[in-house]
Amino acid sequence: MGSGMKVGILGFGGLGQAAAVVLQGKQELTWVAVADRHGYAYDPQGLNLQQTIAAYQSSGSVGSLGVSSEQSIGDLVAAADGVEGFFLALPNLPNTFFVEVARVFLAAGWRGVLVDALKRTSAMELMFGLDRELADAGITYLTGCGATPGLLTAAAAIASQSFAEVHRVEITFGVGIANWQAYRATIREDIAHLAGYDVARAQGMTDAEVEALLEQTGGILTLERMEHADDVMLERLGICDRHQVTVGGVVDTRHAQKPLSTHMKLTGRTFEGKISSHTFTLGDETSMAANVCGPAFGYLKAGKRLYDRGIHGVLTAAEVMPLFVR
Amino acid sequence: MGSGMKVGILGFGGLGQAAAVVLQGKQELTWVAVADRHGYAYDPQGLNLQQTIAAYQSSGSVGSLGVSSEQSIGDLVAAADGVEGFFLALPNLPNTFFVEVARVFLAAGWRGVLVDALKRTSAMELMFGLDRELADAGITYLTGCGATPGLLTAAAAIASQSFAEVHRVEITFGVGIANWQAYRATIREDIAHLAGYDVARAQGMTDAEVEALLEQTGGILTLERMEHADDVMLERLGICDRHQVTVGGVVDTRHAQKPLSTHMKLTGRTFEGKISSHTFTLGDETSMAANVCGPAFGYLKAGKRLYDRGIHGVLTAAEVMPLFVR
Repeated sequence: MGSGMKVGILGFGGLGQAAAVVLQGKQELTWVAVADRHGYAYDPQGLNLQQTIAAYQSSGSVGSLGVSSEQSIGDLVAAADGVEGFFLALPNLPNTFFVEVARVFLAAGWRGVLVDALKRTSAMELMFGLDRELADAGITYLTGCGATPGLLTAAAAIASQSFAEVHRVEITFGVGIANWQAYRATIREDIAHLAGYDVARAQGMTDAEVEALLEQTGGILTLERMEHADDVMLERLGICDRHQVTVGGVVDTRHAQKPLSTHMKLTGRTFEGKISSHTFTLGDETSMAANVCGPAFGYLKAGKRLYDRGIHGVLTAAEVMPLFVR
Repeated sequence: MGSGMKVGILGFGGLGQAAAVVLQGKQELTWVAVADRHGYAYDPQGLNLQQTIAAYQSSGSVGSLGVSSEQSIGDLVAAADGVEGFFLALPNLPNTFFVEVARVFLAAGWRGVLVDALKRTSAMELMFGLDRELADAGITYLTGCGATPGLLTAAAAIASQSFAEVHRVEITFGVGIANWQAYRATIREDIAHLAGYDVARAQGMTDAEVEALLEQTGGILTLERMEHADDVMLERLGICDRHQVTVGGVVDTRHAQKPLSTHMKLTGRTFEGKISSHTFTLGDETSMAANVCGPAFGYLKAGKRLYDRGIHGVLTAAEVMPLFVR
């Protein structure tokens, strides 16, 4: 029932629901629209969090509260003409998914701000390919606006400023989740990074198969040299080459406590010839949801300011300063 | 002799000279203009670093290489019409100095990008008061673009994104300089923050008096709750109130090694009710010059992009993402 910028959330799994909870605390943003795979809900006065989650949990879709649809995003965009921006809290798989969703907005002639928290380099490169079309259509699309890429990539862009030359950017994350089944899609994306797995195999795994794998590893997933779009985001800005950026981490699927502190370490050479490193470290008590959804809405607010000034097309989280949302 | 954006430096003390050295390594920027208290030098093909420093050191002014003038900034602005942006590497005292310099540009009808690394809250508030005039004149003015405020304030703005509410921002710097006499103005600004001193008293001190004070403290200056504009920069963005921001540090005037690692710690509450802190820590081997001049030119590049898109007026380092300069 707020009077802020009207925003929607696409996807209502663990991330989308966390985003909806985050929005409850924001006076400047009003949550008015949501779509999942099988339907959408829209209320220009604001959606009710408890009702929407209850509808999703009881029927498997927010459509039971609003409208059931197998083209839920397109139907929502057509119905919800007052929405000024959307957070795309969607699965990263397949790689083409975000581009397909962007094409739905293009096809509808929609104008406004879109923000994603996609992870994979290849998915983001596809999105860069839509830059011209999105710019011409008057859409401001901010990509890579989660934690990594996102918060930590932005910190790397800030850190690079002290250096004449950047040699290495190392992003290492720790994630602790008490119950992996609340993040089924995310965990499968993580598994796809393991040796011997790929996107198709991970996506095809049943819950029982995921459970069996986690049983073998004691609930721990150790991920190295992941395909994370931090690399192309920094390369695109001339900060370093993509191969100088590495992303890895440890996911504990059985404890909410993080197995290590998530941090970004940027190493370079100053104009005086000194080799040194700046580091940005996230507090252990901050959850993945806080570190993804907070930035996503901070970039949405920044995106709105760009949109209002006529700046459209694809921009990344490393070249735009997110704005704090009250 | 570069083909990059033509930039000038105002002020040619320790900071201005370091900025000129930094520019030597930048293909994207060409150093074409400089002014000090008693003169200016301008060469649209690019100034020679060694010649300019030699002229300054032998005569006390770059005017001996170019033109001597007691209205050096105004005369330079009138003469150097090809300069697209200036870094104001000027003393912070008096508080009105940056505003007076901005008025020189306004009076000349100049258009382009100005970047300062001013420190004091009261000086920045005066600059905010020029927002409308600078916007109307077509000048993009980025303020607070050094290390603190600047690099560390931007890191705080990034860090705030994970939190529903920000409780505290603590910036603690360590500075080590082997020879304080290379930074006479900066050291006097630091002394003005000590108990029993103020701006007028510090500015009026002779070198011998500064030397005597440093003798008493073993060359160490410990500074607490300094008047640093990080506070109003974060307040202006709604991140927190100014009194929740503290800046302090330790300056060792006898050793190049830092007495402690410079860092920013932001503490807040996440949407899930957790209290936690993100930290951004600068590598000890990075000098004040690297951490001030690098960001200053990164913001100058970002400011040029804003300028070209018709975004003018006063913006701070906490609301614009600096762009890496090659």
